[in-house]
Amino acid sequence: MNACRKTILVAGGAGYIGSHTVVELLNAGHRVVVVDNLSNSQENCEDENDLPPSLLRAKRITGKECLYFFNENVCDLERLNLVFDSYNIDVVFDFSGRKAVGESTLLPMLYYKYNINGTMNLLKCMRQHEVRDILFSSSCTVYGAPDQEALPIKEDDSVGCCQCPYAKCKYFVECLLSDLATGEPDYWRIMVMRYFNPVGAHESGLIGEDPKGDPLNLLPKLAQVATGKRPILDVYGEDYSTVDGSPIRDYVHVMDVATAHLRAVKHFQDISGIEIYNIGTGEGKSTWDMVKAFEAACGKPIPFRVCQRRPGDVPAIYCDPSKAERELGWKAGRSLKQMCEDLWRFYVLNPNGYDESIPL
Amino acid sequence: MNACRKTILVAGGAGYIGSHTVVELLNAGHRVVVVDNLSNSQENCEDENDLPPSLLRAKRITGKECLYFFNENVCDLERLNLVFDSYNIDVVFDFSGRKAVGESTLLPMLYYKYNINGTMNLLKCMRQHEVRDILFSSSCTVYGAPDQEALPIKEDDSVGCCQCPYAKCKYFVECLLSDLATGEPDYWRIMVMRYFNPVGAHESGLIGEDPKGDPLNLLPKLAQVATGKRPILDVYGEDYSTVDGSPIRDYVHVMDVATAHLRAVKHFQDISGIEIYNIGTGEGKSTWDMVKAFEAACGKPIPFRVCQRRPGDVPAIYCDPSKAERELGWKAGRSLKQMCEDLWRFYVLNPNGYDESIPL
Repeated sequence: MNACRKTILVAGGAGYIGSHTVVELLNAGHRVVVVDNLSNSQENCEDENDLPPSLLRAKRITGKECLYFFNENVCDLERLNLVFDSYNIDVVFDFSGRKAVGESTLLPMLYYKYNINGTMNLLKCMRQHEVRDILFSSSCTVYGAPDQEALPIKEDDSVGCCQCPYAKCKYFVECLLSDLATGEPDYWRIMVMRYFNPVGAHESGLIGEDPKGDPLNLLPKLAQVATGKRPILDVYGEDYSTVDGSPIRDYVHVMDVATAHLRAVKHFQDISGIEIYNIGTGEGKSTWDMVKAFEAACGKPIPFRVCQRRPGDVPAIYCDPSKAERELGWKAGRSLKQMCEDLWRFYVLNPNGYDESIPL
Repeated sequence: MNACRKTILVAGGAGYIGSHTVVELLNAGHRVVVVDNLSNSQENCEDENDLPPSLLRAKRITGKECLYFFNENVCDLERLNLVFDSYNIDVVFDFSGRKAVGESTLLPMLYYKYNINGTMNLLKCMRQHEVRDILFSSSCTVYGAPDQEALPIKEDDSVGCCQCPYAKCKYFVECLLSDLATGEPDYWRIMVMRYFNPVGAHESGLIGEDPKGDPLNLLPKLAQVATGKRPILDVYGEDYSTVDGSPIRDYVHVMDVATAHLRAVKHFQDISGIEIYNIGTGEGKSTWDMVKAFEAACGKPIPFRVCQRRPGDVPAIYCDPSKAERELGWKAGRSLKQMCEDLWRFYVLNPNGYDESIPL
């Protein structure tokens, strides 16, 4: 048996970034225990083990068997404790929580309840079972609307002036983790990853982003226009003070994000207290860059119309990812071209998402 | 029956500010339902109704009977709902939550758990029972270490750079309330009061601050030195850039704070969404001002020694309370002399706090 093999509890592991990370963890020989209540995933389980489609496919992609799934809500402390009782957990990856910015503004209580208590329950179970290593999925939204002079943004730049309850909850959990690390620096080994704009899909086209409801992000919308599910792309504002007038974001391939987590597994031993990492490419790309790259990937022109700016959208945000490179030995290597090609492959193979799946 | 009589649920109503507010509410003819788990109060109940000492005394002071007490934790949603089922609640005052800054740094999970979930449970019960009016007890600690040029501090000055988990939880609950008000501005009528430094006691000397454990604040420490329970007063720093080198704070009489709540009862009808109020005198007083005023009140010299500054202590903080005066018609009228005299009376009459109570 591989001495470096770990048992990793992945909360929210059936979701977009979670399932891609599960692939990387399985490939590396780790044992993966997913806890997910499928609140934002397709629930139609395809096989006798009742795995949700994303995890069934993760298993097929990797050919690995060491994947265990619990259809549980991390907010249910008693049930979560049973999972910790049943497995000798070494590391917790926390992808749990709801993630729709717009919904969070309409239903703030839902976010304050689930997105904080879920992580708190994980921490309670960890303390009780003497688990020390946790990686929390945060977001570049904790930076709020950063000073445009300060770009690229660094981990110690100011945080907390968040625009929506989703972002505030990310910030609050970061505060809790930081306070825990202050209170017991010799116990906890905590990593926080602030994702910028994860896009793309696994190169097999078998797993990708398959959210319930209307996608909010640019790339899934581009794919919907290309497949005819959406008539036209709405571009929000073309008069920003950026190179081509459209907003600049730091798009990063979801498999690069997954790889960052794999690197993290080995890095916990060097952590005392808490460390925060920006997870992005460090390169800002505009909406028009993405549209062009996606047109090339799908081989079709994308019709669009320019609309008014959305309130809260900042002209540009992209990160300095050098800390992750320095300390985790991680760098996002996949190009914009690959992000678009991989995403397009997922849409071509799964025109209706996981609902009507291709024969595996 | 008085048409303006309301039924007010006071969470944390057995505590320091809570019990003084209960006196004002009872005196004004309101019906008061206290929910308190006595985690920071004396539990030795003296009479057949099992009221804790602070509330038994509030009843004696006012001669009113409309006071109902539930020894329950607001974090227990089911039990809290039963209270809402049993009374037709009009208004909620939320004084709940733990309040020791130092403890919060040592036990952050305790604070993140109780001080956020308690209020969330109150809000859930309110929504379910169609109660719209809530007043949340916040703190000047949400302002963090304010820019000394910006004093006196106003309600719309920057918040969130908090020094400890206690303060962060206050800030988070403020965020939650603000997000709720944004989501449903026509439903909620929310007031947030940011207390500066409440001190003193009811003029009867029957109720006052009787915390379990070691007091952290200047005035209770002064009283302990005067009664011989503490040998000497530690003064933390005398080289601040203030008039006399000692830190400046905005001390406000606890009965003035209580009166602010009484004014608030009538003011909910004018609120749509959320309003925040600074609750202080607006006058900064130094540690030496307090020592002198307390010496005059107790008629004894207070021995002291000057120690190093405590990390996190700011040179000065005091508020602009004009919004509360303008909108609530409230102004803190009691002097430093009265704060010290009333506190001293409580200590003389209750040398061991509520433990060995005077005959009532």
